[in-house]
Amino acid sequence: MKEFAVSLDPENRKPYYEQIYEAVRDAILSGRIPRGEKLPSTRSEAKFLSCSRSTVELAYDQLLAEGYLESQPYRGYYVCDVRDLYHLPENGREQTSSVPEEPLYPTEEYAVDFSPNGIDLEHFPYASMGRIMRGLLLDEGERLLRSSAPFGDGNLRQIICDYLYQSRNVNCRPGQIVIGAGNEYLQILLSQILGGGRRVAMESPTYLRAFRTFQNIGYPVEEIPMDREGMRADLLEKTAADLVYVMPSHQFPMGTVMPMKRRLELLNWAAQEEGRYIIEDDYDSEFRYRGKPVPALQGMDRSGSVIYLGTFSRSIAPAVRVSYLVLPQRLLGCLREKCGFYSCTVPAVMQQSIYHFMKDGYFEKNLNRMRGLYKAKHDFLLGELRKRPWVKRILGENSGLHLLAAVRTGMTEEELTADCRAQGIRMYGLSEYFLSGRPAFPEPVFLFGYGGLSREEIAAGLAALDGILGKE
Amino acid sequence: MKEFAVSLDPENRKPYYEQIYEAVRDAILSGRIPRGEKLPSTRSEAKFLSCSRSTVELAYDQLLAEGYLESQPYRGYYVCDVRDLYHLPENGREQTSSVPEEPLYPTEEYAVDFSPNGIDLEHFPYASMGRIMRGLLLDEGERLLRSSAPFGDGNLRQIICDYLYQSRNVNCRPGQIVIGAGNEYLQILLSQILGGGRRVAMESPTYLRAFRTFQNIGYPVEEIPMDREGMRADLLEKTAADLVYVMPSHQFPMGTVMPMKRRLELLNWAAQEEGRYIIEDDYDSEFRYRGKPVPALQGMDRSGSVIYLGTFSRSIAPAVRVSYLVLPQRLLGCLREKCGFYSCTVPAVMQQSIYHFMKDGYFEKNLNRMRGLYKAKHDFLLGELRKRPWVKRILGENSGLHLLAAVRTGMTEEELTADCRAQGIRMYGLSEYFLSGRPAFPEPVFLFGYGGLSREEIAAGLAALDGILGKE
Repeated sequence: MKEFAVSLDPENRKPYYEQIYEAVRDAILSGRIPRGEKLPSTRSEAKFLSCSRSTVELAYDQLLAEGYLESQPYRGYYVCDVRDLYHLPENGREQTSSVPEEPLYPTEEYAVDFSPNGIDLEHFPYASMGRIMRGLLLDEGERLLRSSAPFGDGNLRQIICDYLYQSRNVNCRPGQIVIGAGNEYLQILLSQILGGGRRVAMESPTYLRAFRTFQNIGYPVEEIPMDREGMRADLLEKTAADLVYVMPSHQFPMGTVMPMKRRLELLNWAAQEEGRYIIEDDYDSEFRYRGKPVPALQGMDRSGSVIYLGTFSRSIAPAVRVSYLVLPQRLLGCLREKCGFYSCTVPAVMQQSIYHFMKDGYFEKNLNRMRGLYKAKHDFLLGELRKRPWVKRILGENSGLHLLAAVRTGMTEEELTADCRAQGIRMYGLSEYFLSGRPAFPEPVFLFGYGGLSREEIAAGLAALDGILGKE
Repeated sequence: MKEFAVSLDPENRKPYYEQIYEAVRDAILSGRIPRGEKLPSTRSEAKFLSCSRSTVELAYDQLLAEGYLESQPYRGYYVCDVRDLYHLPENGREQTSSVPEEPLYPTEEYAVDFSPNGIDLEHFPYASMGRIMRGLLLDEGERLLRSSAPFGDGNLRQIICDYLYQSRNVNCRPGQIVIGAGNEYLQILLSQILGGGRRVAMESPTYLRAFRTFQNIGYPVEEIPMDREGMRADLLEKTAADLVYVMPSHQFPMGTVMPMKRRLELLNWAAQEEGRYIIEDDYDSEFRYRGKPVPALQGMDRSGSVIYLGTFSRSIAPAVRVSYLVLPQRLLGCLREKCGFYSCTVPAVMQQSIYHFMKDGYFEKNLNRMRGLYKAKHDFLLGELRKRPWVKRILGENSGLHLLAAVRTGMTEEELTADCRAQGIRMYGLSEYFLSGRPAFPEPVFLFGYGGLSREEIAAGLAALDGILGKE
């Protein structure tokens, strides 16, 4: 073909070669340059356009790379046969999607939210954490951005190991600790270590995120009822489960502390067969307001059956996204073989920041302050609930970040929740946490999370409930 | 029973109640206090020990909580039957573990490592990133530590959306973007959206981490051979695959750019059946040194079949652990239903830092500088390789962070790799990247990653090779 015209525009932000590339591409796509056509040589086209030959070469190279042209040695550039392949359905499935747009920025809907996951971050040492992060980037930035050890930074694993031994009686070596981006990620990682085809036993009611994660993993879940000592371990032998997920030190949502005898029953169940494991989720053991924390199940394990799962979501903050597994020694080979090629999911700078936060004493200081703050909120809420004629019974005292209260009312849980919602109060009915069935209480039971609320907010929430329940 | 003696030690760091708790617990465990025994009342025990009654109450409460005691209303505290349950195997499996200790701190073994994953972080703007992070913690710390939207921060999704449109022709809305802690995590997340029972087609050779992640997920992988245009799309119909994993813009490790015609074949294959998807891994498209980057396959997709996977591992740094998926609209409902309860695996402060890093122009500036640096290293390595008599052929020029060279030698790939290792040079043979079979070259082919090496290191590595190959 003859040379073709491209009006090269020096005012255009795009370089000349790109203007040529686009002109030729569009001409090929529209069919103006037919397939099989030989393009002018770079030399003659450059002369025609009064530009340098390398500009035209660059444009042709781009067209070659993208497959619009092919080069035949010593002959030149030819237009490829692309058009007949280009007739993809114009009104394909993509256009028929009717999924509503999800809001990019979540909005606050409630004046008072009794979420059991609420935490107090007003007093967090932001300046110290900011100083630590900036210092790390300046001093060790290159190392921290390069890469991270697959199971987590050695310093952090060591200091978590020490912390768990001192505070929770967890008995392990740093090599047994795996750092990951949150509990659910670690649950998934664990499923890759343990392999498919497992059956899980869970308490009911339970922590629903863990339940749903098991569903996504593809592990069938059997629910085991609870009594006042926690999961009915005697029922485990009647199931096909070879994995148990429990929260022995502070069950969510019931607040039950599993007594020694029940713990030993669980450990004995696991020790009976080689492939049985117990996942001990120790999500908020830091917050106990009377006596000292109950030691972890892991520390009593003699058969290498307990997989301990801990998190900084409550002891530091949820959005740092750092959790840790303590694996029994006998799973370490499998971990390395199957998952040793993964990069650690927590940014190295975040891991190092937490390490320094712990090493320099900020973690402990912050935890002690938070325990005091939460205890004060706990005591305030407990006192306020006790004054209420509509509170029939209070459960789950002295620990964690929520209380449960059975409410004397003629309404159902759903009705009361709806009435509260209309007044800007978000309530959490206990039945939401059951895998199936309902709570064994004659009256509705609600979780009152206080971690993220001020006294004023707690009082306002309860006052709204007074109004609703007083009208009955 | 009578009151029992505890020698309360005011010098002990443990409080009195804990000293009492431990003494009673040890007595129960050792059998000195028999099961069923009634403990002295808190009043009489307190009098006996000359301490306050609440101290003894606290100790008893702890023993109750842990199940050593039970309380019978109006009667008192009784010792539980725990001993006969406590005989767990002393020499259980845990002790017999023979897994060697994994080193907590990885050590550098090589003087020159031609890793194709090596990157240059010497010139990263650490001070700017450090200032951004610290500023964020001071100004928005509470919001950033509280929680993050499940699929990522709205601002970051918006700016990635704009960036991908401008630089890669990716056509999407921010709501289609999912932020996650690295490619492998997003691959796992994707498998939860797409569900079990899928079969994947992959190029061979390919990116082995993706292959191994599919293995861990439980997706069988069928390997499709490549020719000089990339994956042989015509062979897809002969497999049972309904998912294809490809790197069309710069295949790893071959460096192939898939031409338009082959791309359209792929898209047509996907559009034939409802449940077919293409995962387009666009891992290093930022680094192209001649012409402009080849647009992404995603931008040509009319049937909602392309799942785009991008990462900041190379454009920022690997250890920030941030990747992103662009999902077709028709998968968004499934995403929200199955995975909407997960927290985003990237810390909110890291997401916001990257957002500001992009918004304030640091990202682009850094990328342009890196492109220049890498181009200089590319040109230097290319020039040096061309001088070598032992280099038979060079592949994968003008893009990415590595070149391939076929080596004229009587040695096998393994032999040459071993000889280099003995001299502190880490080599990467092409055959390592094949799922099965061997490269279709008569001589050994090696990947020469240059991203993380200085000119001196590149020269030293090649000089060592000169020595080894010169002796033949």
